[in-house]
Amino acid sequence: MTKGLKVAVIGGGSSYTPEIVEGFIQKYDHLPIRELWLVDIEAGKHKLEIVGALAQRMVARSGLPIEVHLTLDRRRAIEGADFVSTQMRVGLLEARKWDEHIPNQYGVIGQETTGPGGMMKALRTIPVLLDICRDIEELAPNAWLLNFTNPAGMVTEAIHRYTKVRSIGLCNAPIGLQKWLSTKYETPASHIYTEFVGLNHLHWVTRIEVNGADKLPELLDKREEYSGKNVPASEWDADFLRTLGGLPSYYLKYFYMTDAMLQEQLESMKASGTRAEVVKKVEDELFELYKDPDLKEKPKQLEKRGGAYYSEAAVNLMESLHGDKRDIQTLNVPNGGTLDFLPADACIEVNCVVTGQGPLALPVTQVPEQAKGLIHAVKTYERLTIRAAVEGDRDLALQAMVAHPLVPSVSIAKQLLADMLEKNRPYLPAFFRG
Amino acid sequence: MTKGLKVAVIGGGSSYTPEIVEGFIQKYDHLPIRELWLVDIEAGKHKLEIVGALAQRMVARSGLPIEVHLTLDRRRAIEGADFVSTQMRVGLLEARKWDEHIPNQYGVIGQETTGPGGMMKALRTIPVLLDICRDIEELAPNAWLLNFTNPAGMVTEAIHRYTKVRSIGLCNAPIGLQKWLSTKYETPASHIYTEFVGLNHLHWVTRIEVNGADKLPELLDKREEYSGKNVPASEWDADFLRTLGGLPSYYLKYFYMTDAMLQEQLESMKASGTRAEVVKKVEDELFELYKDPDLKEKPKQLEKRGGAYYSEAAVNLMESLHGDKRDIQTLNVPNGGTLDFLPADACIEVNCVVTGQGPLALPVTQVPEQAKGLIHAVKTYERLTIRAAVEGDRDLALQAMVAHPLVPSVSIAKQLLADMLEKNRPYLPAFFRG
Amino acid sequence: MTKGLKVAVIGGGSSYTPEIVEGFIQKYDHLPIRELWLVDIEAGKHKLEIVGALAQRMVARSGLPIEVHLTLDRRRAIEGADFVSTQMRVGLLEARKWDEHIPNQYGVIGQETTGPGGMMKALRTIPVLLDICRDIEELAPNAWLLNFTNPAGMVTEAIHRYTKVRSIGLCNAPIGLQKWLSTKYETPASHIYTEFVGLNHLHWVTRIEVNGADKLPELLDKREEYSGKNVPASEWDADFLRTLGGLPSYYLKYFYMTDAMLQEQLESMKASGTRAEVVKKVEDELFELYKDPDLKEKPKQLEKRGGAYYSEAAVNLMESLHGDKRDIQTLNVPNGGTLDFLPADACIEVNCVVTGQGPLALPVTQVPEQAKGLIHAVKTYERLTIRAAVEGDRDLALQAMVAHPLVPSVSIAKQLLADMLEKNRPYLPAFFRG
Amino acid sequence: MTKGLKVAVIGGGSSYTPEIVEGFIQKYDHLPIRELWLVDIEAGKHKLEIVGALAQRMVARSGLPIEVHLTLDRRRAIEGADFVSTQMRVGLLEARKWDEHIPNQYGVIGQETTGPGGMMKALRTIPVLLDICRDIEELAPNAWLLNFTNPAGMVTEAIHRYTKVRSIGLCNAPIGLQKWLSTKYETPASHIYTEFVGLNHLHWVTRIEVNGADKLPELLDKREEYSGKNVPASEWDADFLRTLGGLPSYYLKYFYMTDAMLQEQLESMKASGTRAEVVKKVEDELFELYKDPDLKEKPKQLEKRGGAYYSEAAVNLMESLHGDKRDIQTLNVPNGGTLDFLPADACIEVNCVVTGQGPLALPVTQVPEQAKGLIHAVKTYERLTIRAAVEGDRDLALQAMVAHPLVPSVSIAKQLLADMLEKNRPYLPAFFRG
Repeated sequence: MTKGLKVAVIGGGSSYTPEIVEGFIQKYDHLPIRELWLVDIEAGKHKLEIVGALAQRMVARSGLPIEVHLTLDRRRAIEGADFVSTQMRVGLLEARKWDEHIPNQYGVIGQETTGPGGMMKALRTIPVLLDICRDIEELAPNAWLLNFTNPAGMVTEAIHRYTKVRSIGLCNAPIGLQKWLSTKYETPASHIYTEFVGLNHLHWVTRIEVNGADKLPELLDKREEYSGKNVPASEWDADFLRTLGGLPSYYLKYFYMTDAMLQEQLESMKASGTRAEVVKKVEDELFELYKDPDLKEKPKQLEKRGGAYYSEAAVNLMESLHGDKRDIQTLNVPNGGTLDFLPADACIEVNCVVTGQGPLALPVTQVPEQAKGLIHAVKTYERLTIRAAVEGDRDLALQAMVAHPLVPSVSIAKQLLADMLEKNRPYLPAFFRG
Repeated sequence: MTKGLKVAVIGGGSSYTPEIVEGFIQKYDHLPIRELWLVDIEAGKHKLEIVGALAQRMVARSGLPIEVHLTLDRRRAIEGADFVSTQMRVGLLEARKWDEHIPNQYGVIGQETTGPGGMMKALRTIPVLLDICRDIEELAPNAWLLNFTNPAGMVTEAIHRYTKVRSIGLCNAPIGLQKWLSTKYETPASHIYTEFVGLNHLHWVTRIEVNGADKLPELLDKREEYSGKNVPASEWDADFLRTLGGLPSYYLKYFYMTDAMLQEQLESMKASGTRAEVVKKVEDELFELYKDPDLKEKPKQLEKRGGAYYSEAAVNLMESLHGDKRDIQTLNVPNGGTLDFLPADACIEVNCVVTGQGPLALPVTQVPEQAKGLIHAVKTYERLTIRAAVEGDRDLALQAMVAHPLVPSVSIAKQLLADMLEKNRPYLPAFFRG
Repeated sequence: MTKGLKVAVIGGGSSYTPEIVEGFIQKYDHLPIRELWLVDIEAGKHKLEIVGALAQRMVARSGLPIEVHLTLDRRRAIEGADFVSTQMRVGLLEARKWDEHIPNQYGVIGQETTGPGGMMKALRTIPVLLDICRDIEELAPNAWLLNFTNPAGMVTEAIHRYTKVRSIGLCNAPIGLQKWLSTKYETPASHIYTEFVGLNHLHWVTRIEVNGADKLPELLDKREEYSGKNVPASEWDADFLRTLGGLPSYYLKYFYMTDAMLQEQLESMKASGTRAEVVKKVEDELFELYKDPDLKEKPKQLEKRGGAYYSEAAVNLMESLHGDKRDIQTLNVPNGGTLDFLPADACIEVNCVVTGQGPLALPVTQVPEQAKGLIHAVKTYERLTIRAAVEGDRDLALQAMVAHPLVPSVSIAKQLLADMLEKNRPYLPAFFRG
Repeated sequence: MTKGLKVAVIGGGSSYTPEIVEGFIQKYDHLPIRELWLVDIEAGKHKLEIVGALAQRMVARSGLPIEVHLTLDRRRAIEGADFVSTQMRVGLLEARKWDEHIPNQYGVIGQETTGPGGMMKALRTIPVLLDICRDIEELAPNAWLLNFTNPAGMVTEAIHRYTKVRSIGLCNAPIGLQKWLSTKYETPASHIYTEFVGLNHLHWVTRIEVNGADKLPELLDKREEYSGKNVPASEWDADFLRTLGGLPSYYLKYFYMTDAMLQEQLESMKASGTRAEVVKKVEDELFELYKDPDLKEKPKQLEKRGGAYYSEAAVNLMESLHGDKRDIQTLNVPNGGTLDFLPADACIEVNCVVTGQGPLALPVTQVPEQAKGLIHAVKTYERLTIRAAVEGDRDLALQAMVAHPLVPSVSIAKQLLADMLEKNRPYLPAFFRG
């Protein structure tokens, strides 16, 4: 323990890397990292070098004894690691573009974490993650794998069901809500209690207490205030919200106001292309900045990128695991007996106490009847998708697609599936074996 | 027991009545009925007299000692009954017309047993049934209530949750499948084993064994053969069906091929009006026939009406309850521990052994993953609808409407709800109290 | 199907064999057996020949085309069988003697189906049964294994947990109760409904309806009437019984009146030796009878042996499985969701509908609170014993022994275990490997 | 909140009071108490005055603005309280004497928290506690009731099942283990993680991690080290302990080494009377000390009394509830879904995160198979006892007595029950109504 921790970041060439590096520097006292390994694939080498050099400059400026390693050798990065973090994107933004674009062509929501787009991302990503897990099982069996890779719920569930790796799925939404509440009520996060029920990107916040007072009714009335940056701005219906039983994740707009959201997607596409293309531009600009040899800290512009607090969530989690801190964090973990209508091995997003031996899911004190059907419908799609990804099975993929509440019929599902599998051919070897 | 049984038929003026009378006559040896009370409301008096007179002629011809009573006094009919059967329609076919028509105007499936239409029918029917149950609790506490009134699943669940009446929900679909298989394979029903999983009008038949041989794969390949008479004829997709894990109820077409079914509804509406209007014509013709004083048996034309085997299902169930027959029938009963993802008090459609003390649900030997989300989504809508009906609560009604998989968004749900509640105002006193 | 069934009886040299042969002859119309294979081990060859010859004479007299084969080649007997039945005794009556005698020496109940004796019998028997199952998996994968071998609950559970063989555990107690009620109330068994809750030799009969009337209270008041032949006669306490919530299995006397039962065991031992020794004498006499070449039917004296109705239970079960009869029988099968406090794979004794694809457990309509702790305590002992038997693990065996409610302390458990393992050394190779 | 908290201590005349007062003084910064109400019954007035005066001297010395009220008016004490704590003894030590003595006369363990003695204590105490709860429901509906009154598990469960009061059961064993481990390993309690599985006075500690290292195997080998002060010293068996799967509560000695423990009880009784009589002497001495007007702090001698850390446990819990501290404490709370084999409303002893809205039970990460049967057996006794106490029902009391694993037979149970109910007649009005 005296020798410090080893952390491997898979997808280290990501534009997010400066954020996590900043987090490591700030938390060094509680999370003494000795080796930080940024690892990427050949195609990402150029970006890895740019952002890796920035990371090295940041650490150098801090004066801390952290070694920053850049490598394409994943196994070397993983070997003996205490923590592995993933923030990668199989197929890059090009694949995301099609996740968003093809469904839209059929009048269906195009989104990279749910619906047909999320399914494709899962099919591309899960086999790669399971492959990484084989390395972890062999080279760092005690490591914690912090998975940020979307769709984080499905990816984490796949890891739990098909490997022995100790893995936790993470999203920035819960910490984002905490920050927003903390600012709004001018009180530290420790005086706020929020209870999450549901799945990743499909949660309801069923309790919000600030300094012991129930603020949920008040917040359900101020619906305009909470809206995610990567979700368009359609307005919640006030009557509906009042009796929903919980503050909805902004991703729930795709389900509750599908028509308006689709309209916005089509208009936004016309105006500025897919969200993937917008992000691409932001990223290109960021890497231009990163190249500046005088830049030695995380640039302000990174915040526009959308994944606010991702690194803070990650560093907090590592700190609590390392220090057996026993604080409450909202994480993606296997259900156990928490939601009595889902299987024990289904991953859910839920409050956990983070101990040195891992997270322990807290019981949910209420589950709105309203939410159950939708949670189970999406979980059904998730479980079928996971099996389809692992088995490379088109029949299961069709059943998964049909099971998704945003897919309107079997006939559209068939067409979507055919088009999208074809477009993703390079990233889906299991589906194109014969 | 020597004195014979008393049966009360609520909605005795229905065009179906000759069928159930025929059943009682044929099964007299095992189900010795002494008194048959046909009861209806003032508005149905004329039809009650016509069909009641036919019933009396049928019994007279049989020479059996069954008394047929016609009455508008529900309490007298119920008092001391061994069986109460319901086959009524609150709001008559006029209300059904709007159940079907209004959703169509918003591009939504219009159907009287599911979706917005089914919800309205539930809101109209549940309070009336609960009222009948208060009479049964008082006047015939040991009676069995056989509920055919649609939406049968929701109505039966409401009775179980809000009264002490011993009630069983019945549908003709399971017996219809048995009959069809029996004909197709030229084997008696007792050599066929079918296992139903799901809810009323939302089931999957996950096992079909004929003379011990598994016929499910073969049947999933002959999808054109099974299609309900009251559901239009859109074709199942062969690839989808093959791996669905069970023969789907034909009502599942509304969920799996929503677009095509809606198209058919719109076209059929244009051609011949709503299904309600078609049925109205058939009924008028039937009552013309019934008036004929020389008619002393069930006329052939009744079979066109659509509810084939309803009376056979009812008489079979009464016979097994009366005779402690312990045969297997597919019924709507509380879930208990059968489906581990639904509450114990949720009504499901499932195989039961019918004993003298009531039905005992058999365990389901498999539940296709594919079906779980949809079952739970519809059950969520059902449970919210039941509470809305009992409490007369518009907020719950909105949540219920939104929760239904066939309703595309909150904004459409709000408009649908407003229009449909208004149209149903005469039948929804609880919603228009203020 | 036209060619008739093949049945293999493991332990075919048992004195019970004439009973099952009689059953096959009587039920031939519904259970057309072509080949009956009686198989035994070398040590039982002599008895096999005697009883086998009697079986052949019985069949010859019936004129039915059943071939009776005697063999020591178990694999040949099993190959292609439709049914395999086991009625064997590893260690013979000699081992049973010690099961009964050693615990008595420590002031503990000595019984061959529960307590330390039952545990030893399980440790001896389970490995042999699992070995037989390997043969069945290979040579008759579709066969049904009917297991009568005690402790039937544990043995059946072991088979379900460690093999793929389709197995059902059987006991004569449920059919015995039916027979007794049928005689007592002068009504056919089909007019009687009994509901069993619990484990093999540890059940409560929580519902007894005769011609639809609840007879349980009346029967709880006539406690003297039901007492098993192989259990001594200590009297139930009337006050206790009245509110027990169910008619107790007579084996429950060992738990509820341990002191009196132990006293009786000690006295009976003094007077006539262990029950094993008594049985040995009866058996010797039976085999003397069996030798008579003029004997061509089951001799009356067999009924004294104690296992009344065993063969009737077996033949009934085979008939229902073969004919998809769907009647209700009380069997030992995996719990599934029946008792919500036991694991799904724990075997319980419960009413089942017997279909052609196997038994389906019926839900229990009530479980007396009183029974839960004892059921779970004994199931805990059973599960630990099963694991100990499979793994040959002394530590688990000690934990199992301690967990049994009839074992008074860890220190006595240790001594008992040491003595009894040593005495059983020839039959417990897994425990004496080193 | 600024005005400080009100705490009512029922049984305020207890010798333990100086301990809790000391706790309040020490924790004042985090638990600002304004009013402390010590309440007792007429029979305890003299002790209340002595110990109350000491409490007032202690507070005076501290200089803190805490008002100490002494009263016999329970309702006044409860009105508006934030916390109510109970530490009373219905029937005083005299009743305890018989709890211990009578069972011994029948060769049964005599103990005031389990077995026949614990049952009598529950029968005496539960009605009184429920009565107190009626006052709390009316006069302080938001108060937390901290229940120390033994048998704490049963009493807490009764409160949860029969009242609306927010109640938590507390025992000093968990904090005692923490203290012992902390001393033994020279590390702060916050670096130790222990996981408790089971019931009050019937738990297994299945995980013990010190500074992240698993110490359970090591501790299971040092069995002599952990032994409760109020439990005699019989030695654990090393072989048994090694594979038990958890460190046993010292109360488990009564179950695992019943013979030796009984022996010790009989010998100890001979030597020095019942434990009740020993405690009586200690208490008398304490009250002599308390009278000293110069005594202004908790005297050292109180530690001999046996309930070490009780007040620390109470004050810690109040602090966490008041401050929404979210730390982990081992408490007696309703099971929810924690142990999947017990009902949701059964109270268990389990790790909880203590939030401002109450404790949230943490999932148990493993439950030794060995423990399940015993937990369920004792819980069965507990649930029957609770119902017997509430209904004053002798039949249920007999079933409860029989269900307890330490009671050897129905016939002894009947005699014990008759004797003990008679002896407790003054405290069991519900049982002697007629």
